[in-house]
Amino acid sequence: TGHMTDLLYVEQELLSSLEKHIAEQELRLQRVKRWKEMKEAESHVATSDPEGFLGNPINAYHTMRMGQRWAALENFLQESAEGFVSRLAERRALFPSEEDRVGAARALLRLQDTYALDAELLASGKLPGVPLVSASALSADDCFSLGRLAYSEGRYARAEPWLGHALSQEGVGDEGTVGASDVLDYLSYSVYRLGDVQRALNLTRRLAVLDPDHPRAQANLHYFEYEM
Amino acid sequence: TGHMTDLLYVEQELLSSLEKHIAEQELRLQRVKRWKEMKEAESHVATSDPEGFLGNPINAYHTMRMGQRWAALENFLQESAEGFVSRLAERRALFPSEEDRVGAARALLRLQDTYALDAELLASGKLPGVPLVSASALSADDCFSLGRLAYSEGRYARAEPWLGHALSQEGVGDEGTVGASDVLDYLSYSVYRLGDVQRALNLTRRLAVLDPDHPRAQANLHYFEYEM
Repeated sequence: TGHMTDLLYVEQELLSSLEKHIAEQELRLQRVKRWKEMKEAESHVATSDPEGFLGNPINAYHTMRMGQRWAALENFLQESAEGFVSRLAERRALFPSEEDRVGAARALLRLQDTYALDAELLASGKLPGVPLVSASALSADDCFSLGRLAYSEGRYARAEPWLGHALSQEGVGDEGTVGASDVLDYLSYSVYRLGDVQRALNLTRRLAVLDPDHPRAQANLHYFEYEM
Repeated sequence: TGHMTDLLYVEQELLSSLEKHIAEQELRLQRVKRWKEMKEAESHVATSDPEGFLGNPINAYHTMRMGQRWAALENFLQESAEGFVSRLAERRALFPSEEDRVGAARALLRLQDTYALDAELLASGKLPGVPLVSASALSADDCFSLGRLAYSEGRYARAEPWLGHALSQEGVGDEGTVGASDVLDYLSYSVYRLGDVQRALNLTRRLAVLDPDHPRAQANLHYFEYEM
């Protein structure tokens, strides 16, 4: 766990770097705002009397410089994330790999098997017999990952509660990258494999409503209807 | 001027698009801030008792997911400028070209010649005999551009007041892309060509102090000292 402890400090350091980045972004946004307000005042004068405005050769010159002005703003906006993002890139070599993550997910599923733990209890972060230092609940993304891992191993009974819990949480997670249609896709097939064709059909109908162009939804609908 | 009038409306439309972008950025920044605060609270708990924290397998799993978490943030930060920037790119075809800009700069210099106008007066935007719709002063960048244009045509007497005025304004302009060392470089040579070697030397000394590695500063210092 020496390496894992180091990771906690890497994350702490990234958070303080992020704090600086946020403060910088606020200042940048203030500058863009002031620039916009100044240009808006100019633009208001210009568009209320275009002929008169352009009759002044200095205004005509400013108008011809429009490209440079907006290019400068574009650069300013684009470079904004760079400092923090390059700091993040430096640290990336220290991050756990996808393999590490899957290993940790497998460990959680093993723990669940060993102690016959309920998915919802495990997701809440309240584990019997282990120190509850922080109530780190599992997000919808986490539940989906665990469900998909069990699914990929053909353990549909294990997958079903994780996917079901992910679906009930969907959109609540702070990362929120998992969509309900992804969850419904895996869940409906798991439920079908567990023998509940009626529920599989209902879930697939939900999927077809949510995502009418889903590649498997229409085919599965016909198949499950035929199976009933 | 039909095309030029259109440009005024293009700019107005870009400004309202920028306004939306700023409002979006403020919301995004709020989201990043909330995320940071949540993670900071977690990080505080984790680093106060790393062993205890990692003893909870869910916390260990979260730690292993660190890479995904920060990658999601990185994407979120990087995509932030995209909407507005692509809108800007669409409009870029309508922007005046560099040739248009130089044409407008030439027109200003011609006007200056015709009416024997003072650079500082012209820079202030107050032109005798033309409607003063908006008091659009010329920025340091503009004065530098005009000075450099005159310089490139060998008109050092015309260049000198524009460059001098750019120098006095330096850092004041809202775009602020021109640096004092660029201005000093052109100004010292113009002044030298006008015969004032002492002033050329003084300006080059300022340049050498400001930018000790400047490619021309040291060579010119020796040359002007020799000429004295």
